[in-house]
Amino acid sequence: MALVASGVLGLNAQQADEEMLRSLYTASLTQGKSYEWLNYLSNQIGGRLSGSVQAQQAVDYTRKELEALGLDRVWLQPVMVPKWVRGTPEFAYIETEPGATTNVPICALGGSVATPGGGLKAPVVEVRGVEDLERLGREAIEGKIVFYNRPMDPTLINTFQSYSGCVDQRYSGAEEAAKYGAAGVIVRSMNLRQDDYPHTGSMSYGELSLSERIPAAAISTNGAELLSTTLALNPDIRFYFRQNCRQLPDVESYNVIGEIRGSESPEDIIVVGGHLDSWDLGDGSHDDGAGCVQSMEVLRLFKTVGYRPRRTLRVVLFMNEENGLRGGRKYAEEAREKNERHLFALESDAGGFTPRGFSFDCTDEEFAHIARWKPLFEPYLVHQFERGGSGADIGPLKSEGLVLAGLRPDSQRYFDYHHAENDTFEAVNKRELELGAATMASLVYLVDRYGTGPQPIIRGR
Amino acid sequence: MALVASGVLGLNAQQADEEMLRSLYTASLTQGKSYEWLNYLSNQIGGRLSGSVQAQQAVDYTRKELEALGLDRVWLQPVMVPKWVRGTPEFAYIETEPGATTNVPICALGGSVATPGGGLKAPVVEVRGVEDLERLGREAIEGKIVFYNRPMDPTLINTFQSYSGCVDQRYSGAEEAAKYGAAGVIVRSMNLRQDDYPHTGSMSYGELSLSERIPAAAISTNGAELLSTTLALNPDIRFYFRQNCRQLPDVESYNVIGEIRGSESPEDIIVVGGHLDSWDLGDGSHDDGAGCVQSMEVLRLFKTVGYRPRRTLRVVLFMNEENGLRGGRKYAEEAREKNERHLFALESDAGGFTPRGFSFDCTDEEFAHIARWKPLFEPYLVHQFERGGSGADIGPLKSEGLVLAGLRPDSQRYFDYHHAENDTFEAVNKRELELGAATMASLVYLVDRYGTGPQPIIRGR
Repeated sequence: MALVASGVLGLNAQQADEEMLRSLYTASLTQGKSYEWLNYLSNQIGGRLSGSVQAQQAVDYTRKELEALGLDRVWLQPVMVPKWVRGTPEFAYIETEPGATTNVPICALGGSVATPGGGLKAPVVEVRGVEDLERLGREAIEGKIVFYNRPMDPTLINTFQSYSGCVDQRYSGAEEAAKYGAAGVIVRSMNLRQDDYPHTGSMSYGELSLSERIPAAAISTNGAELLSTTLALNPDIRFYFRQNCRQLPDVESYNVIGEIRGSESPEDIIVVGGHLDSWDLGDGSHDDGAGCVQSMEVLRLFKTVGYRPRRTLRVVLFMNEENGLRGGRKYAEEAREKNERHLFALESDAGGFTPRGFSFDCTDEEFAHIARWKPLFEPYLVHQFERGGSGADIGPLKSEGLVLAGLRPDSQRYFDYHHAENDTFEAVNKRELELGAATMASLVYLVDRYGTGPQPIIRGR
Repeated sequence: MALVASGVLGLNAQQADEEMLRSLYTASLTQGKSYEWLNYLSNQIGGRLSGSVQAQQAVDYTRKELEALGLDRVWLQPVMVPKWVRGTPEFAYIETEPGATTNVPICALGGSVATPGGGLKAPVVEVRGVEDLERLGREAIEGKIVFYNRPMDPTLINTFQSYSGCVDQRYSGAEEAAKYGAAGVIVRSMNLRQDDYPHTGSMSYGELSLSERIPAAAISTNGAELLSTTLALNPDIRFYFRQNCRQLPDVESYNVIGEIRGSESPEDIIVVGGHLDSWDLGDGSHDDGAGCVQSMEVLRLFKTVGYRPRRTLRVVLFMNEENGLRGGRKYAEEAREKNERHLFALESDAGGFTPRGFSFDCTDEEFAHIARWKPLFEPYLVHQFERGGSGADIGPLKSEGLVLAGLRPDSQRYFDYHHAENDTFEAVNKRELELGAATMASLVYLVDRYGTGPQPIIRGR
């Protein structure tokens, strides 16, 4: 097997790589700290919506923990973030006739405006997506609540594809419906399961002026089925909802950054990261507490096994992925200003489940170089090396010569929890989380050692 | 790609196979019945220990459900099974000094004898395995409780390997300790997690006479850590436990069997199965309700997509895998008596988690033939095709010309639930269960179509 060897590297190098991966996995599974960190983030701090007290507590906590690792440098990168607050609990019901109501679980979408103080009650028009609005026309929509009810496609094996095929309803549904005079929108939760949890998430009003904006909420999948069935029996029912969320002025927050300076090529930077902010309904354990503690663990594992990276290895805990991406943009902006040379960036933002592989945003040549490492991961049942997206936070860094990658954990359960009240610590399995951290560390090790392209970048090897 | 094609089969066959797999997965994910069946088995019936009323209810229920599928034949195969009963809840404590006690969670191991009516209290000797007994000698063991505390190895990626490396303590621990005059044994639960659930499971006294048998119980992993720590502080502490389980005379039970008769080679038999019995602490959802409903689903999916198998396809729900394997032995015995020609047997008995692949017990030639189908499974993220064990129930069938296979789901969480009170319906994810059923159906389809060896067995193709 000449897997890793590229001419100059022989069997010894391959054995050394196999041993290093074994050490990283063993250290993560037996001396790992990721689960303990996640326990703190989830259970001592909780949901970390941008601009919240909890988000600041998470900044302080992770900075302190990174400092305790004895890295070469730990710092905070200031960034202004939006501050949206949910307010008091939302409330909604289906009214089949005056006085005959059934409560259904809803939650405001992130960025939505409030309903009028006394709530909003209106007839409902059910659609399968924004494309139905034009067909129905203004007369069918005006003054009504548009109910977006296209479910996630259960037949796609990668559940993120199902999500991509649906999330336009949540993101743009209010903007589009407002153009037809709708009074509000209710969106079926992005959830493959039937349950009672409404799932929040970001939405945008696009170019709509403040006065044109209409309130938008998610309804649980069970609630969506009930509403749809009720509408089929009687199209004249009315829906009521009340929410008093609002957008406050931007506030200062931070990306939390730590680095081990490269021993040979410190000017080459490798980034591992996740996002420290989360939605406010659960405690953001899978999204993305898991990705943060796994990223921190990558640096800690290198310390634990005694591997000193040749290039500079940086962990970045990005702020505000969920409703603004300000942290990711800020990091990329400063990197450009400082003319930093980023070689590789790996994000974990798909849950703390059993790692299945990676997705790479790179050239054919780079992918061919990286794909040769695949056999090294087979003992760890990590099989997927594919082309595709990486992570939202590292996206703004994108430039020639930089390989972007995303950890790909098993996706089957992800949308059971995503942006909902049940995204909690109990939903994360310790071993699965630790395997993910070791899988990330293994890839970072190989990139550090062999670069991301067929031409060695580091001199003197 | 000439993946499936073996000369005579060309692109059309490969496309047809791809389409068939797509149909099977889609049917399972959108019209599946496995989850509904499991809900009934778990929540309406519950734990199904051999010889129990619940085991008989499960026989009646699954027979009725198979009959409703319109198979060619459904029948019960009588088999005598052991009947062991747990009795009243077990109770245990650590006594650091008279009157100073701390309760710890234990459960009797399946097949264990009871303690004396008032319980058993004795000093404790902690060991890492049966090999420690000889080193310690009779004087250190006689009259004491032997505490087997070797944990499962967390560094093995396949958790079943960790289990194999530990389970001798549970299975043979009492037999071996009794030879040195021990009064009883306590075994650390086969669990990779720290929690408060004791995990039961089968044990054997080997050739020991009734009077030589000593009671054996499992202690939760947290309980084991507490006991070990307490012993390290003071080796003179005593441990108390009480259990009143007992072995009753064998009773008649049944394997539940249904079949679709092959349209071309009915004499060739393909078996899919799981075991219908379970332990009594939880409701046996992962072990092995999941395997039973997935096996039933294989036949139902063929009906749903309109595929008529060429060979005879049989679902077998085996009785008494957990504490006797009588069902598996009985099925094999009758198959031999009737001179039935079994071509392939596939068991699902490793939990209802995301399917990762299969393990095959077969010849090199057969494996090479089957491994060519691997690319067909890649769209479903099913990557592992490996040599190895299959399933306990189909093991007794083993003979030349028969390929045995086991479904290999993700194993990381399996031992969190295995044989414990928390192996319940809630621990099973609907999509993961359904993906497993479709993965099994896909392999069975390919075996039905192309056989298990390089030489086509079916004539006239």
